Amino acid sequence: MLPPLPPVVLVLAGHDPTGGAGIIADSEAIAANGGWAMTIPTALTVQNCHDVSRVIPADPGVMLASAEALFDMPVAAIKIGLLADAPTLIAAERIVRRFPGVPVVIDPVLKAGGGAELSTPELCRLFVDKILAHGDILTPNRYELAQLTPELADADDTQRAVELISQGSQGVLVTGTDDPLPQSDAQTVTHTLHTPESARQWQWPRLPGTYHGSGCTLAAALAARLAAGEALPTACEQAQHFTWQSLSHGYRPANGQYLPNRFFHDSYAYAKQL
Amino acid sequence: MLPPLPPVVLVLAGHDPTGGAGIIADSEAIAANGGWAMTIPTALTVQNCHDVSRVIPADPGVMLASAEALFDMPVAAIKIGLLADAPTLIAAERIVRRFPGVPVVIDPVLKAGGGAELSTPELCRLFVDKILAHGDILTPNRYELAQLTPELADADDTQRAVELISQGSQGVLVTGTDDPLPQSDAQTVTHTLHTPESARQWQWPRLPGTYHGSGCTLAAALAARLAAGEALPTACEQAQHFTWQSLSHGYRPANGQYLPNRFFHDSYAYAKQL
Repeated sequence: MLPPLPPVVLVLAGHDPTGGAGIIADSEAIAANGGWAMTIPTALTVQNCHDVSRVIPADPGVMLASAEALFDMPVAAIKIGLLADAPTLIAAERIVRRFPGVPVVIDPVLKAGGGAELSTPELCRLFVDKILAHGDILTPNRYELAQLTPELADADDTQRAVELISQGSQGVLVTGTDDPLPQSDAQTVTHTLHTPESARQWQWPRLPGTYHGSGCTLAAALAARLAAGEALPTACEQAQHFTWQSLSHGYRPANGQYLPNRFFHDSYAYAKQL
Repeated sequence: MLPPLPPVVLVLAGHDPTGGAGIIADSEAIAANGGWAMTIPTALTVQNCHDVSRVIPADPGVMLASAEALFDMPVAAIKIGLLADAPTLIAAERIVRRFPGVPVVIDPVLKAGGGAELSTPELCRLFVDKILAHGDILTPNRYELAQLTPELADADDTQRAVELISQGSQGVLVTGTDDPLPQSDAQTVTHTLHTPESARQWQWPRLPGTYHGSGCTLAAALAARLAAGEALPTACEQAQHFTWQSLSHGYRPANGQYLPNRFFHDSYAYAKQL
């Protein structure tokens, strides 16, 4: 008799052909953290390890039909990534509403690692209005945090996170890789979890180079851990640990950004054993 | 200094939201067999563990642009899965031509595990005319083998495989799970590798139940092993072994077909260790 499925994470995110980011990356991170990913593409992209050159939003009707077909699955967490236009954003909101009471991790993907803009001020506003309130945890980097709170021109991260919490998100995990905090030394990356009650910080040794898919890896690992029942601060810590390990064991393509290795704990194990 | 990428397998296949089959399944099988998958969706599908309800072929222009963006990657094998209409089939052929000398595994996906037809006689004909000659190895089940050789009404599998080889495929691995050979006992599954020189058979204990994604798992594992430089018979054997293990360690959803566990060698290892 086979065992039942591991905790199911429903992923609404873009597809990245390189496998560094997007739904492939999410599925790997979720499997490696003990979950099973079910994925509904919100967009296809044309990209390599340098940058994104095209984003093709999905048909929202296909997204909704896909969610309907999966409705008999025991979804235990939801992860939302790239929402590249208003119709797919609205479809994502409708899908999340179909699974009430399920923890939701929202990774606001506003810019590609290579620099391509993936959002607009109008879409950011719609994101705040429609999606934010469904999030148990939001995982912006410092750039994304600023984009989501444009009205707070001179605010610090804490003020911005408090603003997002006041608008509906239950927690905000601000990653500091892209833009170190002024008080950080160059060798350290600081990530900060803001909740209505408190703020908690973690510091990690800064890795050399830039990586493709680190944000997806973090948010998906976090969703898998929430799906398994971990409390938010623990899940945030373990997802950071997993991500740091995936990056430090990553791969160096001939050119472009480095790629995470989400099976670092077991690379080639099966291939070697034969 | 990070290591270079593992051998890259370029996957042209459909997306299955359940993760049992399609590009997610391929990526998992490729990672577990020591490769790195880069994936170009040929179609999106609406499905669950019962059956496929919709197939939405991709934009062939997006497929071609995606391949172009990946052209600086060291592609070491190609895996082709679902080609659901003529334009995507033609695009797949053009992409394969861009990577000459690379081993190509072709999994003819003509019917879903739940029974939905995914091809037509006309599309089968186009597949034979345009795609077959690019295949170092074709991995049909017995139903698909018959569909691809409709002119051989009373032929046996060997005659049909020889016909496909005469039309351009270098080898045909016929899987016998779906439709046991007349001489098989009910407890055994026989897979047969036909090459221009010989035929070789493997027998595996038949597993109870039906599985979602076993064909994708086999073809993708085979592609990863060819990408790593394994000889065809060895790669076929190891891919069968990997697939049998993935199925026997699989999961039982609340209803529908069982799902493979492609990380059976390491399930939950990371999650448990923390």
